[in-house]
Amino acid sequence: MTVLVFGHRNPDTDAIASALALAGLEVALGTDAHAVALGPPNPETAHALACFGVDAPGVIERARPETDQVMLVDHNERQQSVADIDEVTVLRVVDHHRVANFTSVLPLYFRVEPVGCTCTILARMYAENEVPIPRAIAGMMVSAIISDTLLLRSVTTTDDDRRVAAELAGIAGIDLDTYGDALLRAGAALGDLGAAELIDRDAKSYTLGTTQVRLSQISSTDPTEVLDRRDEFLAAMETERVRAGEDLLLLFVTDVLRGDSELLVVGEPVAAVEKSFSVTVVDGHAHLPGVVSRKKQVVPPLTAALR
Amino acid sequence: MTVLVFGHRNPDTDAIASALALAGLEVALGTDAHAVALGPPNPETAHALACFGVDAPGVIERARPETDQVMLVDHNERQQSVADIDEVTVLRVVDHHRVANFTSVLPLYFRVEPVGCTCTILARMYAENEVPIPRAIAGMMVSAIISDTLLLRSVTTTDDDRRVAAELAGIAGIDLDTYGDALLRAGAALGDLGAAELIDRDAKSYTLGTTQVRLSQISSTDPTEVLDRRDEFLAAMETERVRAGEDLLLLFVTDVLRGDSELLVVGEPVAAVEKSFSVTVVDGHAHLPGVVSRKKQVVPPLTAALR
Repeated sequence: MTVLVFGHRNPDTDAIASALALAGLEVALGTDAHAVALGPPNPETAHALACFGVDAPGVIERARPETDQVMLVDHNERQQSVADIDEVTVLRVVDHHRVANFTSVLPLYFRVEPVGCTCTILARMYAENEVPIPRAIAGMMVSAIISDTLLLRSVTTTDDDRRVAAELAGIAGIDLDTYGDALLRAGAALGDLGAAELIDRDAKSYTLGTTQVRLSQISSTDPTEVLDRRDEFLAAMETERVRAGEDLLLLFVTDVLRGDSELLVVGEPVAAVEKSFSVTVVDGHAHLPGVVSRKKQVVPPLTAALR
Repeated sequence: MTVLVFGHRNPDTDAIASALALAGLEVALGTDAHAVALGPPNPETAHALACFGVDAPGVIERARPETDQVMLVDHNERQQSVADIDEVTVLRVVDHHRVANFTSVLPLYFRVEPVGCTCTILARMYAENEVPIPRAIAGMMVSAIISDTLLLRSVTTTDDDRRVAAELAGIAGIDLDTYGDALLRAGAALGDLGAAELIDRDAKSYTLGTTQVRLSQISSTDPTEVLDRRDEFLAAMETERVRAGEDLLLLFVTDVLRGDSELLVVGEPVAAVEKSFSVTVVDGHAHLPGVVSRKKQVVPPLTAALR
């Protein structure tokens, strides 16, 4: 039976690239593995797939009945995974996020490391198994590192990410800075998308204490594009918050060139949000200097404030 | 601040050896790490420590106030860890059990592999970091593999365990079979210990569905020693079950030479136990041919039966 390999819902470039990379490694090691995704590629990922001539993975919502054996990349929390995650066997997890809400019946291969990108861990796994990385896969993997670390500038970036990104850029035959700048700009183009679509593009749900929180992030080269449409965004966020049954919905519009974020907030408790970032939310908005990482700069203070 | 490294409560040889091994690796890599244990060594571990001239790690119940940074080996479930696990930061987890009841706020290094022994993973980590394993540590690590895999005979044994055990035996300068037989016999000697003490020596608590289960295991070269004292054991088990607030307490008396177990049961639901192993429990007892691994042959069927 084919083993399905996939990243989190609302896939970003790392979710899709790490699924392709792990499935490729597993196939090289003799496992019948196949990469899929829990949603279509976003514009940034589409740019990378087009550059390296890779087809977008097929989209699934459930693993069954196609398979009951799966491997998770770039996530481990059940609410970010397939709808039927509790009914299948997880053989492997490769991830770089916090560990939470995961339970297995049997021992498994579960590898999480505090690096900037799942593909950095996967590059090490290829090396450990002495499997060469094909050019197209290397291109997708370096795209994921550029995406997750904002071209190695995010606070989440480690020396491992820098070393692996340089190696992968060499295999892919790209100039890291030139390609990286183009990739981030492709991902930051808001285009003519509606507020609801932009809010949902990179959104993850968390249970922090007893509060259901949805954290949404948009990359931008010009956040005023969003701030100028603030009322439209706040209304769409409130609709989405109620629809999803969340207590709190936060939208981070991250300026990928300056390394700051503009925060929009709907729901309660706003006081916990203000405490987390030491800011005052005025008309649903606050400026967050230096905040670019949901994982490292948002989830931990919010977890503490909502405990 | 010193980072404390420790295995699970009621430590077995792997819990203590893997703490010594990871702390040694961390020190070699420049971290101020120190191995401790959540209980004194059992007779088997004491035999290994004496053979290789290693002091038993100090015993702690809580990590604080000595430190708020810890590394877990040979366990990841909070109820098997220090009492104040929720108040400290877990930097690393190295384990070979199922993943459950673990939550971190920050990303961490979390490495679980489905091999027979945590020390098998640690041997690979020494190699990946190009740190040589000192003879005494190698001796403790091979002891752990012998203990967890019943001298490479348990169903949990992988090719990795076999390869690593042979390498470590070479570094430690022991004959695997001769030393292994002596180690298992040292651990299987029930001596003149009371039933309560034997029941508690290698016991772990699990929440399976809504049932609190305590699974206790004794190694023996002659299980009739325990069966001849069945009423004494059943009474001590019931006292322990009530004291610990468990629904079900199972004692596996595992014949390390034949590879079978004798099961004693107190509490409810006994029907789920009978279903798990396809046996009938008579006067609190059943014979379980071929069952030696709590992790692989007990927890999974019991989880299914109690779901």
